[in-house]
Amino acid sequence: MIYLSRRIGFSSAHRYYQKKFSEDENKKIFGRCYTEHGHGHNYILEITLGGEPDPDTGMVINLTDVDHVLKAVTDPLDHQHLNFDIPYFKEVVPTTENLARYCYDGVKKLLTTKVKLVRVRLFENPELWSDYYG
Amino acid sequence: MIYLSRRIGFSSAHRYYQKKFSEDENKKIFGRCYTEHGHGHNYILEITLGGEPDPDTGMVINLTDVDHVLKAVTDPLDHQHLNFDIPYFKEVVPTTENLARYCYDGVKKLLTTKVKLVRVRLFENPELWSDYYG
Amino acid sequence: MIYLSRRIGFSSAHRYYQKKFSEDENKKIFGRCYTEHGHGHNYILEITLGGEPDPDTGMVINLTDVDHVLKAVTDPLDHQHLNFDIPYFKEVVPTTENLARYCYDGVKKLLTTKVKLVRVRLFENPELWSDYYG
Amino acid sequence: MIYLSRRIGFSSAHRYYQKKFSEDENKKIFGRCYTEHGHGHNYILEITLGGEPDPDTGMVINLTDVDHVLKAVTDPLDHQHLNFDIPYFKEVVPTTENLARYCYDGVKKLLTTKVKLVRVRLFENPELWSDYYG
Amino acid sequence: MIYLSRRIGFSSAHRYYQKKFSEDENKKIFGRCYTEHGHGHNYILEITLGGEPDPDTGMVINLTDVDHVLKAVTDPLDHQHLNFDIPYFKEVVPTTENLARYCYDGVKKLLTTKVKLVRVRLFENPELWSDYYG
Amino acid sequence: MIYLSRRIGFSSAHRYYQKKFSEDENKKIFGRCYTEHGHGHNYILEITLGGEPDPDTGMVINLTDVDHVLKAVTDPLDHQHLNFDIPYFKEVVPTTENLARYCYDGVKKLLTTKVKLVRVRLFENPELWSDYYG
Repeated sequence: MIYLSRRIGFSSAHRYYQKKFSEDENKKIFGRCYTEHGHGHNYILEITLGGEPDPDTGMVINLTDVDHVLKAVTDPLDHQHLNFDIPYFKEVVPTTENLARYCYDGVKKLLTTKVKLVRVRLFENPELWSDYYG
Repeated sequence: MIYLSRRIGFSSAHRYYQKKFSEDENKKIFGRCYTEHGHGHNYILEITLGGEPDPDTGMVINLTDVDHVLKAVTDPLDHQHLNFDIPYFKEVVPTTENLARYCYDGVKKLLTTKVKLVRVRLFENPELWSDYYG
Repeated sequence: MIYLSRRIGFSSAHRYYQKKFSEDENKKIFGRCYTEHGHGHNYILEITLGGEPDPDTGMVINLTDVDHVLKAVTDPLDHQHLNFDIPYFKEVVPTTENLARYCYDGVKKLLTTKVKLVRVRLFENPELWSDYYG
Repeated sequence: MIYLSRRIGFSSAHRYYQKKFSEDENKKIFGRCYTEHGHGHNYILEITLGGEPDPDTGMVINLTDVDHVLKAVTDPLDHQHLNFDIPYFKEVVPTTENLARYCYDGVKKLLTTKVKLVRVRLFENPELWSDYYG
Repeated sequence: MIYLSRRIGFSSAHRYYQKKFSEDENKKIFGRCYTEHGHGHNYILEITLGGEPDPDTGMVINLTDVDHVLKAVTDPLDHQHLNFDIPYFKEVVPTTENLARYCYDGVKKLLTTKVKLVRVRLFENPELWSDYYG
Repeated sequence: MIYLSRRIGFSSAHRYYQKKFSEDENKKIFGRCYTEHGHGHNYILEITLGGEPDPDTGMVINLTDVDHVLKAVTDPLDHQHLNFDIPYFKEVVPTTENLARYCYDGVKKLLTTKVKLVRVRLFENPELWSDYYG
């Protein structure tokens, strides 16, 4: 098996806020990430796909297909405010961990070929990222 | 003269919106940057200072002082939504260009030593940045 | 005046070869860059534009226009062999220096706005680049 | 067990072309990667070796030995056109996947110590890479 | 399970020296790393933690806690000479491998939550690093 | 005129210490940089050379010559402790500023061609660097 990985960037705003919590709890738990209007990041999404390269093309999967999937997953997030514009994150706190899982689910649904989705990695910045293997 | 440069990061949300413009004009001019709730970036602020190194310390300026200034300028921006939380950007569109100038003015005011502020560079992402020399 | 800079990547093959020179001279002067079929790079083109931000839009130039120009200049180079596919480089050695100047001329011709083209920077790799100011 | 990883760069040209396919098939499957003379990249090869550090030297393997192996594998590829200059790639399409496997085999043959070759990672550019574990 | 990774930098000096070895052996085995007063690096420590995100906070672990642990481990190393200032490295050669293990042990001791320490990665520079999984 | 820039890395230890100052002054002024045995960095030296490309070779200067000069300047610094091993820094504090100037002088002396040394840039780390133009 050979693994192919690809990265794509997108820019979004978010805030950490849990409506179950009091304002004090939100502040204490989420610190600076709990501000009313949010802040944002240049996110980077990385996916790793595994498979046997086709003996004729030498490819695990055609990169054009990978890029279509990545675009389809990140376009609705790009230049949006996750808490306001993405229904899923109206209920769920858009942490790096939850966003990685959300992207994994999006990629998984769109990958129709026989390739295996091994890992989704989501960078909030170069010093912080989250991995999900399904 | 020798130049010393230093970088610091901060994360903010913003949107491009000019109230003078109609909704259609805003959309046409600002494209994806014009969304209601905004999006965000990992900004990087770089400043370049010029001076003659002190013959004893070998320093143009003590790095501790540089970092105090950079912190004082970026802390009010970090984890905030520029359009909502920074009074200046309620009227002015928070483009990379305008944010660079805003940071230049902030740094300039706080630099009390004899060192010269040569340039402020502001990265919105590694592929886009703006420079201001005063 | 405020400066806006933007980068874009492209991948090309090239070789260093001067037909005026003997084979020995080519080898001696160009070393490993003189191989029959060439090698290649992930080039990065950076342009710096200067102007006064429009008071309403806050922009020196609309980024969409910048990207159109950059695409128009790099698309014909991308995934090509400079020596074979770009007429200019059939006569001229595609060094980093010459490629920077070639890109400068291409950008210059296409920039129809009142913005000033200050500098073109071309990276052959992160350790080697060339600047041209016109 | 402790793992030591090391990276080295090299620059090569390549094209995607399968002689079994018609010209139309080649174009359809390989897109921009199918051009007559090829294009190129700044490749980066990364290897990960596992072992127990020697209690006296504190090393899994002497870095000098690692670098000899990496040089021996990448020197014949560096500043070459993979399709023309590397016999293996006259028959096999030099995709990222196939090149990763080719490098793995080269490193494996030369590693004579008791250290374990865990993974070879090959970057075509910072946004695309392939992993092979043998 | 979801994984969260975080990086932090620190700057230290070190030298490779084993007192059991003769001077000639030290020179032969450690090469340039064996100089009397040592040299140094901008190290980067990366830790990967695994766990189930809390359904309310969306976090595997609060980043504030991660940063406290990383600070507690790297502060005693930062701006120090490992061989002279860190008792452990008076006896043990401060190779990348041994320093990775040392940091793993430090992080492990301080992590009191139910999160799992999966991996510690230590970069000596961007081309050389070591991983330890415990 | 076209400018060519090249970077090279080296690793050294240093400490900030001025013998004219009392221990308290040293501590107050130099903070963490004043430790007895020093710490270290992965330095990066960048030089920018200006000239007219030769019409036949397309080069401002042959890169082989640039690399010889850079090696000649950085080899004596690499894997050394600046304060102990470099006579100049026994008297002069090895700040980023002073090290940039020291490298400028070294490069200047060795550049025998008609090319112009425009700037030397020295990075102590990616967030701090110094420029000298002579």
